Amino acid sequence: MPDRAVGDPAERDAVLDEGIFAHVGLMAGEGDGAHPVVIPMLYARLGDQLLLHGSPASRLLRTAKGGVAVCVTITLVDDLVLARSGLHHSMNYRSVVVFGTATEVVDHDLKVEALDRLTDHVIPGRMAAIRPHNAKEVRATTVLTMPLDEWSMKVRTGPPVDDDEDLGEPSWAGLIPLGVAAGTPIPDEHMPEGAEVPAHVAGWSRGTTG
Amino acid sequence: MPDRAVGDPAERDAVLDEGIFAHVGLMAGEGDGAHPVVIPMLYARLGDQLLLHGSPASRLLRTAKGGVAVCVTITLVDDLVLARSGLHHSMNYRSVVVFGTATEVVDHDLKVEALDRLTDHVIPGRMAAIRPHNAKEVRATTVLTMPLDEWSMKVRTGPPVDDDEDLGEPSWAGLIPLGVAAGTPIPDEHMPEGAEVPAHVAGWSRGTTG
Repeated sequence: MPDRAVGDPAERDAVLDEGIFAHVGLMAGEGDGAHPVVIPMLYARLGDQLLLHGSPASRLLRTAKGGVAVCVTITLVDDLVLARSGLHHSMNYRSVVVFGTATEVVDHDLKVEALDRLTDHVIPGRMAAIRPHNAKEVRATTVLTMPLDEWSMKVRTGPPVDDDEDLGEPSWAGLIPLGVAAGTPIPDEHMPEGAEVPAHVAGWSRGTTG
Repeated sequence: MPDRAVGDPAERDAVLDEGIFAHVGLMAGEGDGAHPVVIPMLYARLGDQLLLHGSPASRLLRTAKGGVAVCVTITLVDDLVLARSGLHHSMNYRSVVVFGTATEVVDHDLKVEALDRLTDHVIPGRMAAIRPHNAKEVRATTVLTMPLDEWSMKVRTGPPVDDDEDLGEPSWAGLIPLGVAAGTPIPDEHMPEGAEVPAHVAGWSRGTTG
């Protein structure tokens, strides 16, 4: 089978570092009104910790920091898999699922380290190009951390797997590689006319581009 | 604020039709062992229904078809938002969250319609290019449907929002547009040498490409 579980933390970290955002799930509400909620959220890996952050007004973060069980999933799609039968169509992907509870980071210095990492995760080199966070901003942000203790990873790689009797079918079968495309950066209205686009912006890319 | 809630079903459907896969969340396990699980899954929209499918062996699908509360989230990222301060960095995105319970599709004809739609959702025009599903395949697949009754949609658009006192900062600020890149299709080893790549494969694309 082309689907396999992965237990190597180095492969896990490669996925966590290549992903841009996560889907965070938890149980919201109480009693009969309890229901799962899954929300996209920026994240970063710092060593063997997973960091999440957002506004203190975020309902999901407020629930998460209360110590409820959380699931954070990061998925990268590598290829569309086109088989000769509809039911053997698939995706090549790498997906990491992290289970646990989140803890709020309250120490100022640890929080700054986490916020730097969260910024540089999405745009490597960014913190070196902007002013440091100020104390008011740090106070106005909620940062959560989760240990990378309980996790699982699944991967599918390789070509389609067709039944032997379908191999004579005339339909095209194989892979369409997918990736993240980055377009030409668009400066905002406050940027001086003709300002140079720095390398960490002009050269931004993620993974292979298909 | 550049973040806003969207209530228009047409905007919702545009996101559901552009997305490739969803993140499906539910509560797994019982009692003290209960915990949220979030898993990537192919999906499709059929009218005002959301379809999911997979192997009958899938634990998530088996739990979902038992009638537990499910949350299905589809997220599209449009831009990285680079502000002059780290804390105002963001993403432009469109995200649809569907709540409810899933029901198994058992009627053969409805199941075939759903499976056709699931295949054509990922690769438009694909079902016209391959043989129909056979009865054995249809039996060996679990299809779930969820009504698009309870849902919410959030969107962020536009440039970074910086504090006035940061507008003189020398750092570059603006957007890096993101999209889905499709590489050159790779035929599998059973394809005849030099076989033409059909239009629905060679021309596959999704949304804007950044």
